[in-house]
Amino acid sequence: MASVVAVDLGGTKLSAAVVDDTGAVSCRTKVPAATGNMRASVEQIAQVVEQVVRISQKEVRGVGLIVPGISFAVTGEAWAPNLWGHANVPLRAELEQMLDIPITIESDRAGYVTGESWLGVARGCNDVVFVAVGTGIGAGIISGGRLIRGAHDISGAVGWFALNPERRDIYREVGCWEAEAAGPALARRIGARSAEEAVAKARAGDGAAKKAVEDAALYLGMGIANIVSILNPEMIVLGGGLMQAADLFLDPIRRSVAQRAQPVAAKQVRIEVTELGEDAGLLGAARLALGDSATG
Amino acid sequence: MASVVAVDLGGTKLSAAVVDDTGAVSCRTKVPAATGNMRASVEQIAQVVEQVVRISQKEVRGVGLIVPGISFAVTGEAWAPNLWGHANVPLRAELEQMLDIPITIESDRAGYVTGESWLGVARGCNDVVFVAVGTGIGAGIISGGRLIRGAHDISGAVGWFALNPERRDIYREVGCWEAEAAGPALARRIGARSAEEAVAKARAGDGAAKKAVEDAALYLGMGIANIVSILNPEMIVLGGGLMQAADLFLDPIRRSVAQRAQPVAAKQVRIEVTELGEDAGLLGAARLALGDSATG
Repeated sequence: MASVVAVDLGGTKLSAAVVDDTGAVSCRTKVPAATGNMRASVEQIAQVVEQVVRISQKEVRGVGLIVPGISFAVTGEAWAPNLWGHANVPLRAELEQMLDIPITIESDRAGYVTGESWLGVARGCNDVVFVAVGTGIGAGIISGGRLIRGAHDISGAVGWFALNPERRDIYREVGCWEAEAAGPALARRIGARSAEEAVAKARAGDGAAKKAVEDAALYLGMGIANIVSILNPEMIVLGGGLMQAADLFLDPIRRSVAQRAQPVAAKQVRIEVTELGEDAGLLGAARLALGDSATG
Repeated sequence: MASVVAVDLGGTKLSAAVVDDTGAVSCRTKVPAATGNMRASVEQIAQVVEQVVRISQKEVRGVGLIVPGISFAVTGEAWAPNLWGHANVPLRAELEQMLDIPITIESDRAGYVTGESWLGVARGCNDVVFVAVGTGIGAGIISGGRLIRGAHDISGAVGWFALNPERRDIYREVGCWEAEAAGPALARRIGARSAEEAVAKARAGDGAAKKAVEDAALYLGMGIANIVSILNPEMIVLGGGLMQAADLFLDPIRRSVAQRAQPVAAKQVRIEVTELGEDAGLLGAARLALGDSATG
C-alpha cells in the first residue's frame, strides 16, 4: 500500500496529512499559513512534511502539494498572489532543495476536482468540473479522465467569463463572472461587510438581501450553463466558501442550466455540492502525487 | 506510406478524397449531398468511397468521415438534423455493412480542429480551438493534444453560451451566442436576406449594416474571450461561412479578448483565421482515420 504526504496550502492556512492509495487519511495537521514570502512557505511546508512523516512512521513515497493559484508544470514556478505577491516564484526548485522525496505541485482547483472525482460526489466520473465560488471563482476540469491544463497551465479561469455585453469598470479587475457572482459581489450588492452577512440577511427574509442572492444566482447559473455547453460534463461539483450556502443557490443554478445550456447536455449533467468540503484539496493533492497507481 | 479516404459530409454537399499520411490529397470529388434519409447518405458515401479508391489505385486502410452534427462514439449513432431529422441514426452500423474497411466517424468540428492542428494555421499546437461561425456556432477543441469530446460526445456546443443576463425568446431555440452572432443573426439585425447581403452593405458603408456587424462582433468577442479564459489555448482558429468576412470581425474580436478574457491567457493566445478553408474538414477526417501513425 502506497502512501504520500498531501499538503493543501491555502491563502490563510496549511493542511497536511498522510494519505494512502485507498484514500485513508492519518496524521492530520492544520496550521496558519506562513506569510511574507515564498521562503517562509517552503520552510513551513518542509517542516510540516517532516513532522507528519515522523509521526506516521509510514514510508511515504512522495508529496502532493496544491497552491492557491497557478502551478506551472514546465518551469516549476508558482503564482499565488495572496501568499507571494504577483510575481512567479521558483517553488519546485526551492522545495526540492529542502525535501528528499518527489514532489508534485498543482493548483488548488486541480486538486479539488481530482479529489472529488476520486473519492467525492463525482466518484468515477471521467468528465467533471469543480467550480469553486468564494472570494473568487475558478474551475478545475477533468475531461476524458484527464486534467485539462491549457497551453500554459492557467485553464479554468472562468471568473473571467464575460456574461454581460455591458462592461462595468470592476470587470477589468477580476472578470465579469467573479465581479457579479463571487462572495464579495454578493456583499457589495447590499453594502454588507461579507458574503456571510448577506446570506444571513437573506435567510432572515431581508428583501434586498434576497434580491442580491437572486442576482448572484442568475450569474452563477449563466456561467455554469456555459461550462455545461462547452464541455458536456457528467457532473458539475460546486464548492468554495459561498457554496456553504448552497441551499440558496442550487435550485436557481439548476434552473438556469436547464434554460440556458445546450439542451441535451443540460439534461445529461448533474449539478451537485462538494461532498468532501475542505478535504477535497487534501485528497486531490494525494491522488495527484500517487499518480496512476491509486486504486480508489 | 499509409492512405485513407476522407469524406466531409456537409448539410448540402459531400467532399471526398484520398489523403496520405503526409497530407497529400488526390482524387478529389465533390457532389451535392444526398438528402431524404440516412440510407440515401450511406449509399452515397459507399459509392463515393469505392469510386475514389478505384481511381486512386492506392491501397487505403480506412475511411475517415465527418458529419454535420454529432457522432456518438459508444453507440456509433449520429445526429445531423439538416440531413436526417432530429432522431439519432445508426450510421456506423449501416456503413460497416456497406464498406469492407475500417471507418472512423467524427463530428465536423472535431474534423476542423484536427485538420488545422495537423496541417493548417495551428500546425503543431496541442491546445487549439476551432470556432466555426456560419449558420450556427460550434467549437472543435483540442486540449493537451487530445480531442475534447465530453461525457456524451457533444462538447463544443458553444452556440449556447449565455452572454446576456436578459433572456430573449430566440435564445431558447438556438442559444444566446448563436442568436446574437451567427450569420442569420447578422442578417436579422438589419432585415437582410442573408449574412452575405449584410456584409456587402457594411462594406458599402451602410450605417445600419456597419452597426449590425459591430453588434455581432461584440458577441463574437465575448464568446471567444470565454473560450480563452476556460481553456487557455495557444490558438483560436476562426472558420465557417461568416468568417469569409473575417477582415470585418478579426480586430474587434482580438480587442474584446484583450479586454474581457483572463489577462495572461489573453496575451498568450493567438486568434487566427483558418488557412485550410474547406479542406480543414477533409484533412481532419483523414488525420482522424490515420490515427497516431500520421507523421505530419
